[in-house]
Amino acid sequence: MQYPEPISKLIEGFMRLPGIGPKTASRLAFFVLDMKEDDVLDFAKALVNAKRNLTYCTVCYNITDTDPCYICEDKKRDRTVICVVQDAKDVIAMEKMREYHGLYHVLQGAISPMDGVGPEDIKIPELLKRLQDDTIQEIILATNPNIEGEATAMYISRLIKPIGIKVTRIAHGLPVGGDLEYADEVTLSRAIEGRREL
Amino acid sequence: MQYPEPISKLIEGFMRLPGIGPKTASRLAFFVLDMKEDDVLDFAKALVNAKRNLTYCTVCYNITDTDPCYICEDKKRDRTVICVVQDAKDVIAMEKMREYHGLYHVLQGAISPMDGVGPEDIKIPELLKRLQDDTIQEIILATNPNIEGEATAMYISRLIKPIGIKVTRIAHGLPVGGDLEYADEVTLSRAIEGRREL
Repeated sequence: MQYPEPISKLIEGFMRLPGIGPKTASRLAFFVLDMKEDDVLDFAKALVNAKRNLTYCTVCYNITDTDPCYICEDKKRDRTVICVVQDAKDVIAMEKMREYHGLYHVLQGAISPMDGVGPEDIKIPELLKRLQDDTIQEIILATNPNIEGEATAMYISRLIKPIGIKVTRIAHGLPVGGDLEYADEVTLSRAIEGRREL
Repeated sequence: MQYPEPISKLIEGFMRLPGIGPKTASRLAFFVLDMKEDDVLDFAKALVNAKRNLTYCTVCYNITDTDPCYICEDKKRDRTVICVVQDAKDVIAMEKMREYHGLYHVLQGAISPMDGVGPEDIKIPELLKRLQDDTIQEIILATNPNIEGEATAMYISRLIKPIGIKVTRIAHGLPVGGDLEYADEVTLSRAIEGRREL
């Protein structure tokens, strides 16, 4: 026996999402049946709107509903610094910190030869184009601290240094609130390497 | 900083679902942005259709897109037995077994004084109404093997036995593939109680 068609279609829909298997999908589908009709309509509209109304900013490639995005548009931001991140969620993480007031550049990925992603497949050429403008004085490389992120940071720094722009990489070390005992060796050796005088 | 409005609305939508917190919701929302537009539209339609086109069968109170549902309509099924379950998902579980060919009655809950759910709040009066028909010879109580399910089964059996209809309860015991060592005492004592001669 199968569920009635409308519900099995909904279950299939949920199952397309990452990390949702058949059990969770049917639990969510049955939950939807008990939701208020207006809430379900809102949710359906939100899905379609998010897909249709969001684009990538043509300057920094962050996700946005206006183009250029409101960070690129904001006259108060420091236009001499660009922070390079892998994806739009990283911009949110940086903005939550409330200490960085420069611009961003979202690569939309990282160099990963294993997955067939080369420098041309992510927004590196677009970053270089932005640097033709003389106002940029520093590039902060905030790609993820893993193999792909490091490789990407290394690649970009080699391209940009010759132009004469300052290139920095965010620090590696022990996370605040972490425990020395549980730190892996690589992190610990980076923490020692990056030690600062007090 | 906030996400652009279309995406924050979508995140809110996902967060209304059970077991989905802010992190998972934003992961799902970003996944939706990368999905094909047609898939997103299908999913949105499935949500609305499931909510709008599904009702409860007016005979057995199972979830259905036709009324009466296709089990109640099916002429091949044994109309002398009704299996009483708590919700629509239990019907699916029973049907997967492919060994039961009778009818169902979905209570849509269980008696639970703690949550203020009494016998009149679930489909017990509707079950009694179905019994006025002389064809029913057996009621199988397949409510969940927990306090609420047991109380509900007990309550229904006391109502129905005086009418002269056979009332049975599904067996309690060790799950197949389980391990005696890890069985709780209550299950074990039920398994001993329900032992059968070989």
